[in-house]
Amino acid sequence: MPKGQPSVVPDDGLTTRQRRNRPLIAVHTGIGKGKSTAAFGLALRAWNQGWPIGVFQFVKSAKWKVGEERALRVLGASGEGGTVAWHKMGEGWSWIQRDGEMSSEDAAREGWEQVKRDLAAETYRMYVLDEFAYPMHWGWVDTDEVVAALRERPGNQHVVITGRNAPQALVDAADLVTDMSKVKHPMDAGQKGQRGIEW
Amino acid sequence: MPKGQPSVVPDDGLTTRQRRNRPLIAVHTGIGKGKSTAAFGLALRAWNQGWPIGVFQFVKSAKWKVGEERALRVLGASGEGGTVAWHKMGEGWSWIQRDGEMSSEDAAREGWEQVKRDLAAETYRMYVLDEFAYPMHWGWVDTDEVVAALRERPGNQHVVITGRNAPQALVDAADLVTDMSKVKHPMDAGQKGQRGIEW
Repeated sequence: MPKGQPSVVPDDGLTTRQRRNRPLIAVHTGIGKGKSTAAFGLALRAWNQGWPIGVFQFVKSAKWKVGEERALRVLGASGEGGTVAWHKMGEGWSWIQRDGEMSSEDAAREGWEQVKRDLAAETYRMYVLDEFAYPMHWGWVDTDEVVAALRERPGNQHVVITGRNAPQALVDAADLVTDMSKVKHPMDAGQKGQRGIEW
Repeated sequence: MPKGQPSVVPDDGLTTRQRRNRPLIAVHTGIGKGKSTAAFGLALRAWNQGWPIGVFQFVKSAKWKVGEERALRVLGASGEGGTVAWHKMGEGWSWIQRDGEMSSEDAAREGWEQVKRDLAAETYRMYVLDEFAYPMHWGWVDTDEVVAALRERPGNQHVVITGRNAPQALVDAADLVTDMSKVKHPMDAGQKGQRGIEW
């Protein structure tokens, strides 16, 4: 985004600095490509600020996005920026001892419970809740509860949520919402996904 | 993007593998946030593949995107993935000895000339031409010439171009086009950009 003057100066009693540093809820939704890559691009900025970053991947398969995971793990371990904790539903959340019998629905809910605990404890400064729009859309996790927990989160914690079909209540609560609209995708022309592009 | 079957199997005489590994032209356009962050997210995948990455930033100010630059420089120097070369118009292209008298228009054109040289030499496997849609939109760089050079590029080189107002001829030539549509942005609510989010 280009630098610029805000179009409205709100009458909210905050200084520009306070308003500027207000923690954000960002949502990347829509059917186009770029929702997750843009979230991980934001994580690079957070890393550069030295912030602790928590990634929660709400997807069954861990195949996709291995590139982002390896890059952020290397960055987190470099000692030059922020730390990176990476949590995957697809491999069973790391804090769960045995998840053998857990359904996807229960696993998604358990992931959200951990996010709530981390928000309350202010564990991270930037949260990437990748594909988290799906469990809300499917009704596995209650959107109103998510919105309430996000609204009440303490301190200065940014939260980025990705996925198609972001529920309207989440969009309403968010500060920054981008709809990634598909204009053209190689799959439409019969091309399958390829390494370096899709993962 | 979810894994899936392509909707059409083209009659182009290529094997699935050949078709899969066809080099792509990707365009991230639209007025919403996420165009550049998604391009740098893609660069993480390229890095993970061990590919040489060339970033060309076609912007006057180098202030924004310092997070991505530092992260990709650390990754490129880590020896664990691909290499990263980062070229900035804002600081005078690195290959120019003296750019004191160069206008933005000339500098943009010179950046494109270097991209053409690198494409011909197959210097990189992934090119991020950040904000390159602007010099095309403004007529500083001829879009038809860009499209021709991209179409004729040898080998297996992916090119990602970002920026608002991507010219239609570029969109037509691209394999993957996402329009980042703004649903909501903090600036609309009077909030200025903040570190870790906008840079």
